[in-house]
Amino acid sequence: MELWYTEKQTENVGITCKTLQTLHREKTEFQDLAIIDTLQFGRMLVLDGMVQTTVKDEFVYHEMISHVPLMTHPAPKKVLVVGGGDGGTIREIIKHPSVEEAVLCEIDRRVVELSQEYLPEISCGLKDKKVTVLYADGIKHVQDNPNTYDVILVDSTEPVGPAVGLFAKEFYRSIFKALKEDGLFVAQTESPFFNNGLISRVFKDIADVFPIARLYLASVPTYPSGLWSFTLGSKKYDPLNPAVDKELSFETRYYTKGLHRAAFELPRFVSDLLK
Amino acid sequence: MELWYTEKQTENVGITCKTLQTLHREKTEFQDLAIIDTLQFGRMLVLDGMVQTTVKDEFVYHEMISHVPLMTHPAPKKVLVVGGGDGGTIREIIKHPSVEEAVLCEIDRRVVELSQEYLPEISCGLKDKKVTVLYADGIKHVQDNPNTYDVILVDSTEPVGPAVGLFAKEFYRSIFKALKEDGLFVAQTESPFFNNGLISRVFKDIADVFPIARLYLASVPTYPSGLWSFTLGSKKYDPLNPAVDKELSFETRYYTKGLHRAAFELPRFVSDLLK
Repeated sequence: MELWYTEKQTENVGITCKTLQTLHREKTEFQDLAIIDTLQFGRMLVLDGMVQTTVKDEFVYHEMISHVPLMTHPAPKKVLVVGGGDGGTIREIIKHPSVEEAVLCEIDRRVVELSQEYLPEISCGLKDKKVTVLYADGIKHVQDNPNTYDVILVDSTEPVGPAVGLFAKEFYRSIFKALKEDGLFVAQTESPFFNNGLISRVFKDIADVFPIARLYLASVPTYPSGLWSFTLGSKKYDPLNPAVDKELSFETRYYTKGLHRAAFELPRFVSDLLK
Repeated sequence: MELWYTEKQTENVGITCKTLQTLHREKTEFQDLAIIDTLQFGRMLVLDGMVQTTVKDEFVYHEMISHVPLMTHPAPKKVLVVGGGDGGTIREIIKHPSVEEAVLCEIDRRVVELSQEYLPEISCGLKDKKVTVLYADGIKHVQDNPNTYDVILVDSTEPVGPAVGLFAKEFYRSIFKALKEDGLFVAQTESPFFNNGLISRVFKDIADVFPIARLYLASVPTYPSGLWSFTLGSKKYDPLNPAVDKELSFETRYYTKGLHRAAFELPRFVSDLLK
């Protein structure tokens, strides 16, 4: 038999992956959750019918959402991840020697539990002694913790369902307050090919709230269009002019210091979205 | 009714596009050719079941295969395209003021004829007075024209069927001879996520033949994995150190002079393929 998982990434285009089996499926309190084994990308976490992460290509997203801001800040000590229950972003954060505490604030406990059961390569960092896992609303956690974090990473699902509030200007204002005086944050902000309206609006909102706003890109095969954007808001440090020339003290598969800078060199049609 | 075109990009993953209608389909002397109208990407040319170009995302591939080498050479006058019967690469080449003659050598006359009928936005440049269209075997044309071209672009289909010989070391040796003493060439070289063996081999072959070999990347949503590679071989000019600081004298949608350099900053797993 042939079993194919097909995700309609927009109304008019989809990705289809040959699949061995469904390992788990449930309706959590917040979303439809599935873990499937695919031949091309290995094990895959799917939330509300959208690929969140796969064993084969997760390194791109997790390295790029974390190492770009953490290499921009000269010495990040306390880092928050909003969402990111699979643990991949946490796994990358704790590679940075300066980090003393990494807090994961995930609204859906089941994402963490099932990632720990089925995706050990990705979730492994969650058991590190530097890591605190909170099952709570990230918006409320950010509101309740002013002047607390050096870096905040918004590792959210798509801007539908539980994640809508994570793409709102009010949330970016709360993040500004939750950051220390030299803090910075990054949010995943979808595909420049398919979500250009969202990218324009979010960039403008972040640029209204933060003195420094920058967009950068990375290539993730299982995400719609294969090209993904991240938007960075910073109070002090510019990712294009790092305050200190930090050395990268660990191995990577995607991120390099050269790529850090290159990721901000945008195709013309993308930079046009930010005007 | 819903009509979906699905391309299996590998044995285990595919892209599926909602489609209005098939406009044309035939078996040419060389390949299965289809032109379809898709909702996400507009009109699409499909050869042997593989997307070649679409109205919505063709600008990425056509700008990046042409402007990177043509901005590296200080004054390219005579340029050859091997393949590329849709005309998109020619359309970009003739935007360069120094270009006096652009030769298209396409083995399959029907690709050119049907692109002119159904894809006027892409094929429009083929009627320019600087352009010569030859219906011939590109390998033979290159062999028969030593010391002729400033720049050669290998705008081929995948390395199956009629294009196999365009990925062979012998062909790169012929290209070396067909170039003038300061000439350079670029070939499209598939996806670093899915075709890493091919990329390693082709890069090594080109680096054996040319004193300067470089690989660069661009994001094309309708190509497998969304990330595409181009390999450049050059006798004299290094794309990272252009001989002259040329101005870009026309509008683009993807290419910029900043991106020219950034496209060569490779993710670690890609640069590892070139060792």
